[in-house]
Amino acid sequence: MTVLETTSARTLLDRCDELATHSSMPDGLIERVYLSKEHAEVNAIAAVWMEAAGMTTWQDAAGNQCGRLEGAVPGLPALLLGSHLDTVPAAGRYDGILGVLSAIAVVERIHASGRALPFALEVVAFADEEGTRFGRALLGSRALAGTWDDAWWQLEGEDGVNLRDAFVAWGLDPERIGEAARKPEELIGYLEAHIEQGPYLEDENKALGIVSSIAGARRFIITVTGRAGHSGTPYERRRDALAGAADAIVAIERLARSAQLIATVGHLQVFPDAVNVIPGKVEFSLDLRGEYDSERDRIWTVIQGLLTDICRQRRLRWESVETHNAPAAACSARLRGVIAEGIRSTGDRRPMSLFSKAGHDAMAVAEISEIGMLFVRCEGGVSHNPEEHVTEDDVAATIDAFERAVLALADAHEAEAAAGR
Amino acid sequence: MTVLETTSARTLLDRCDELATHSSMPDGLIERVYLSKEHAEVNAIAAVWMEAAGMTTWQDAAGNQCGRLEGAVPGLPALLLGSHLDTVPAAGRYDGILGVLSAIAVVERIHASGRALPFALEVVAFADEEGTRFGRALLGSRALAGTWDDAWWQLEGEDGVNLRDAFVAWGLDPERIGEAARKPEELIGYLEAHIEQGPYLEDENKALGIVSSIAGARRFIITVTGRAGHSGTPYERRRDALAGAADAIVAIERLARSAQLIATVGHLQVFPDAVNVIPGKVEFSLDLRGEYDSERDRIWTVIQGLLTDICRQRRLRWESVETHNAPAAACSARLRGVIAEGIRSTGDRRPMSLFSKAGHDAMAVAEISEIGMLFVRCEGGVSHNPEEHVTEDDVAATIDAFERAVLALADAHEAEAAAGR
Repeated sequence: MTVLETTSARTLLDRCDELATHSSMPDGLIERVYLSKEHAEVNAIAAVWMEAAGMTTWQDAAGNQCGRLEGAVPGLPALLLGSHLDTVPAAGRYDGILGVLSAIAVVERIHASGRALPFALEVVAFADEEGTRFGRALLGSRALAGTWDDAWWQLEGEDGVNLRDAFVAWGLDPERIGEAARKPEELIGYLEAHIEQGPYLEDENKALGIVSSIAGARRFIITVTGRAGHSGTPYERRRDALAGAADAIVAIERLARSAQLIATVGHLQVFPDAVNVIPGKVEFSLDLRGEYDSERDRIWTVIQGLLTDICRQRRLRWESVETHNAPAAACSARLRGVIAEGIRSTGDRRPMSLFSKAGHDAMAVAEISEIGMLFVRCEGGVSHNPEEHVTEDDVAATIDAFERAVLALADAHEAEAAAGR
Repeated sequence: MTVLETTSARTLLDRCDELATHSSMPDGLIERVYLSKEHAEVNAIAAVWMEAAGMTTWQDAAGNQCGRLEGAVPGLPALLLGSHLDTVPAAGRYDGILGVLSAIAVVERIHASGRALPFALEVVAFADEEGTRFGRALLGSRALAGTWDDAWWQLEGEDGVNLRDAFVAWGLDPERIGEAARKPEELIGYLEAHIEQGPYLEDENKALGIVSSIAGARRFIITVTGRAGHSGTPYERRRDALAGAADAIVAIERLARSAQLIATVGHLQVFPDAVNVIPGKVEFSLDLRGEYDSERDRIWTVIQGLLTDICRQRRLRWESVETHNAPAAACSARLRGVIAEGIRSTGDRRPMSLFSKAGHDAMAVAEISEIGMLFVRCEGGVSHNPEEHVTEDDVAATIDAFERAVLALADAHEAEAAAGR
């Protein structure tokens, strides 16, 4: 039997470094957005790696890069393994990327082992998870889940180009978006490895963790409107939109902390944004997440009242647009079980279970398939930052556990089939 | 004697409307920055109006548009009349512009009257008062005052072009900037008409007011640095630069109000500015002004302590760069006197005196000449806003009072000369 060269943890980290060079930002900073030149570049590279792992490859109608290794017979339903290759601005090099590359490494190992699985394996490198360009997250995985919304075609990025025109310019056909949708009966399940983006594994000295569920975020763009004016204007005449927004940001933080939720204002823009002009308008984003949807929704109601009070006092107006609303998504017992088995195979006898405060492609895929997620420790819980870091040992454990989880699922399928016979 | 056509208040307002069409912003909004295409356009138009008013014209080495009407004999020292033609973003159409156009109207009337004054009259349309493009105010008037700082050549606008390169691209020679400087002995004084940009004249039902002094602003760019991270990061791990900046903005407002000063945060930028990333860095401007320099400086010290406290609590860092520091500038008794006489000539027997909370070109010119300012009521005290408004009646009163002030100064000069003879 020929032993094929398999991808080691070191090689995987080198591949992360290589993808990091495909960026629209200068000075070694990483930003890779949907339907960009860099998106095309990393898809092409991922396809090469997929093919080297034994897969046939294609790019789907949404620009997701896909690869498939047939099972025991051609045309079986597939176990999807995936994550995303797009990034936020000034990103780290592992968020999403690690999941795609470890999925490829797992397929490569199984292909090399020569074992014929009772299902096909597919790797999906999603093209838009972060929503950086069009302000709408999970575009890639929603296309795959068949939950694409035609209203999104009009979404515009900062360059003023809307999603439809960006699709065409990148060589995709908006009319064919439906072809990216997968049918539930084609899928066995979906597994995703991802850095934790939180400190809990590190605090417990664990390399890996089982995700129990993914907390759903709601996102809003809030606009506070006052009146622009000269910076010599006395206070009693001011209607300063930024002073009102600052009041709101401070109050939202206090409220969310006390309610054990997380509220992030990550984007804020001032109009007209000049040193000697009182801000007439401020637009800011609010990302609100918690373990329970009901508590998160209740806090949003409280925040609305708070905005109304602040604006009344300051003679301002406010309005909001909801740009994202994801329900919490639970990982299935079966897939949590195989991930636990994978982690145990790396020597961790009592795998830790934790819920994800961050959103993931798995949330979108949950609409058409059961999902499971494997978390990987990241240093200091830091992500969405150039300092994002994982160790080579943890990456090795990730590949081992991920492979074992896939094989455990294959074992279970084979056992079921044998029992059913 | 030929009676020349003189510029009426209506014509002056029409001219304001005409200049407002020269803008770099869409949708009828006005923005006209230093060394832009629009700057060149309005200089050319102002030159035509200056020539129609009897002046010879030139553009000085800093891009200020100048015109001169000789006095009784050629080469006499000049009384400067001026203001600026540049604007903030989304500006009104009168801030600065009204002063330039009323100065031209006054010269036109005096030229038309045939009276030979004991000094020359010059109109200066300053090219940069607001500092919108390079973050440094009064560039035009500082060039004229000979207080240009060579360090400014490296100032960069948002387009990444520095002041030196912008000079060259616009057709000016940085090596010749010194030629814009005027000598004190060439000048009789400087008079400027300007909208009040405050509510005090309106509150007192006055069209015009005498400026006693101009409060000096200090301006800072403050940078708060934390750590960017994923929006799922729990609070105890966050170092959110925007939450810290919001705290500071709220506290600075409270402090300045209680100290009877004015503090404005007009510019704020978030890095990396993405909905799902905790802000790692925030840059914001602080414009601090008060009637007394000492009180303003004392409050800046208090604000520094406050920033340090907030940053210590939130594990952030802060630093500041001072971009502007103008001492309060007093208007001379003689020029306040002629402005009072001008206002009385319009029927207001008891002219109101007030200090300017806004900075003006007159502050820079005060380095080389005595200064006087005439304030014009503006609706609601609103300026730096498209809603900025003055009435035709008030503009008519402005031209009348301004002309009378110039003639009163001429009368005084002639009386002095006669007494000296």
